[in-house]
Amino acid sequence: MEILSTPSLVVDADIVRRNLKRMADFGAAHKINIRPHTKTHKSQFIGRLQIENGCQGLTVAKVGEAKVMSQVSDDLLLAYPALDPVRANAAAQLARTNTLRVAVDSEYAARVLSDAAKLAGSTLGMLVDLDVGLHRTGVQSPQLALELARAISKLPNLRLDGLFCYPGQVWDKPDHQAESLKKVDALLQETLDLWRRDGLSAQIVSGGSTPSALQSNLVRQYTEIRPGTYVFNDLNTVRGGFCNIEDCAARIHATVISTAVPNQVVLDSGSKTLTSDRLIPQPDAGHGYIVEYPHAVIRRLSEEHAQVEFSSGSRRPELGERVTIIPNHICPCVNLQDELWWRESDGSIRPIRVDARGKLS
Amino acid sequence: MEILSTPSLVVDADIVRRNLKRMADFGAAHKINIRPHTKTHKSQFIGRLQIENGCQGLTVAKVGEAKVMSQVSDDLLLAYPALDPVRANAAAQLARTNTLRVAVDSEYAARVLSDAAKLAGSTLGMLVDLDVGLHRTGVQSPQLALELARAISKLPNLRLDGLFCYPGQVWDKPDHQAESLKKVDALLQETLDLWRRDGLSAQIVSGGSTPSALQSNLVRQYTEIRPGTYVFNDLNTVRGGFCNIEDCAARIHATVISTAVPNQVVLDSGSKTLTSDRLIPQPDAGHGYIVEYPHAVIRRLSEEHAQVEFSSGSRRPELGERVTIIPNHICPCVNLQDELWWRESDGSIRPIRVDARGKLS
Repeated sequence: MEILSTPSLVVDADIVRRNLKRMADFGAAHKINIRPHTKTHKSQFIGRLQIENGCQGLTVAKVGEAKVMSQVSDDLLLAYPALDPVRANAAAQLARTNTLRVAVDSEYAARVLSDAAKLAGSTLGMLVDLDVGLHRTGVQSPQLALELARAISKLPNLRLDGLFCYPGQVWDKPDHQAESLKKVDALLQETLDLWRRDGLSAQIVSGGSTPSALQSNLVRQYTEIRPGTYVFNDLNTVRGGFCNIEDCAARIHATVISTAVPNQVVLDSGSKTLTSDRLIPQPDAGHGYIVEYPHAVIRRLSEEHAQVEFSSGSRRPELGERVTIIPNHICPCVNLQDELWWRESDGSIRPIRVDARGKLS
Repeated sequence: MEILSTPSLVVDADIVRRNLKRMADFGAAHKINIRPHTKTHKSQFIGRLQIENGCQGLTVAKVGEAKVMSQVSDDLLLAYPALDPVRANAAAQLARTNTLRVAVDSEYAARVLSDAAKLAGSTLGMLVDLDVGLHRTGVQSPQLALELARAISKLPNLRLDGLFCYPGQVWDKPDHQAESLKKVDALLQETLDLWRRDGLSAQIVSGGSTPSALQSNLVRQYTEIRPGTYVFNDLNTVRGGFCNIEDCAARIHATVISTAVPNQVVLDSGSKTLTSDRLIPQPDAGHGYIVEYPHAVIRRLSEEHAQVEFSSGSRRPELGERVTIIPNHICPCVNLQDELWWRESDGSIRPIRVDARGKLS
């Protein structure tokens, strides 16, 4: 590993394969399609692995990511209300050659996308985004979901494909997950009943997220789920109780660059590497898990420095020593790297491009 | 501005010029050299403006940044203990053609750099990093600074150039800044006295930071300061009391993409744009200042969503509306963009490359 400069992000190939297989097996057992969110890895290479592992399409957040992933799959979901002219026109263009669906929560977005698709001569699939408890995006009731579905079904160059939700709130309450998911189930059922009575149908009901993925059979309406983080996992998914340390495939390799201050070492993995994202279940628990020094706390980050606290008298790593870190939240860390390092169990290692890094629009 | 996709980072040229002139005037008045830290803008274009405005050299954090800025200035300070082999060798190579100084806080780092410079046939200038209160890096006492200076002066291919400090702690206590800076003054004086008695001299005493910059005349030993953020400013420097909103040159342009949840709008500037860096003086005050809606609070960020809270009954922006945001901390936001947009007062706008984006080593 000494060939790598630090900080670098190294991915364990076997753990990735195991994580992909676990999700594929779950999907097969419960007849739920897996449409992974590629925001976690942002790489065509890993997108292809997902498709090879039985995923029938991919999810993206931005149109720039959709363009990148259109090289990997021709069945894409843009899980974002792409209602500004730049995104809407790019989405409509892409829909000329790919199956592209967009999740929207407003008639405004549907109209903009309809106009763009008309101009491009394409058809965009539409999923109605229903808020099931996170209160971030999504129409606020089954009745409003019905009204939006009706509006979409009347707009040219749009195809009403179904329902969309993101039960992200289960992050905060892992113990109440089953209960939360049953509420999601009830809301979706109520919405679909309204649609049916109105003569509207939902070919797709898309939900999920990594924490709820392996219980998503509790939401009987789901036809597909969109887990992202599961491919690598991170300290959030470990501390949330959704996986183990051994399931974390991606680690930051960092170097000790200062030991001048007592009971502290400084690593070269600051917020420009680990991000300032806090640990969701324990916001004040530090900025990642140092595998070789599990009791050390990454207490403070500046852009290029991680200040790691050691209890008095405990063994500190030495100057120049390398350590490996499981970050709080892996997805934005990947976005800070131009390439990941893919390591096979035989020790061989090679760079993987982060093709969709920095795609903001 | 409608040509720009969002989120984009737009820089007001006139404000930058004013910020550069203010610092140049201060340096001239107090005979303190300005060696700005380029981590804030990471662009050769703005580095050149700084040199044209009387800065006699540039500061960088990483060797990759030094390579980029060597196109702009041949007098560079690497404000980072570059003690791993990759960085040390790259620094030594660069020192063949550029004046390059490195701040170190260990004999280990000095030895690694000496070996690398010997191999490259170059000479590296060394500054001894003294901790003056932040407790991040830096030797812990004037006596230890003397011992490190002695060690450096005996190592081949190194040149002992002086002292280095980073009084970053004044961020937390703006009201006590003058008092803090007088303590810095006393520590540096004590160190320099020890050096002098030992026959060692410091051609350079390098300090500073944006918050303390305009009071750095209180530290009589400084020959140069290294402010970074001053070129753009941000909500940290405003709320810390170090500048006004009108001095903030860099703003994120964002689009409202959802208004489905009551008393909230969602912008397309999530943590992938604004970062999760909290506001230093008020950590729970949100994730930036929306210029057009100063009473709104950017309450929660996910990667691609900013959830903005409005008080009940207040006017919210509409779907598709564009707003501009002054981020909490501008430096890591710049690192997330491939280009900035440079806007002149006549309305003309052009892209500026973020040449040193993502240089991690």
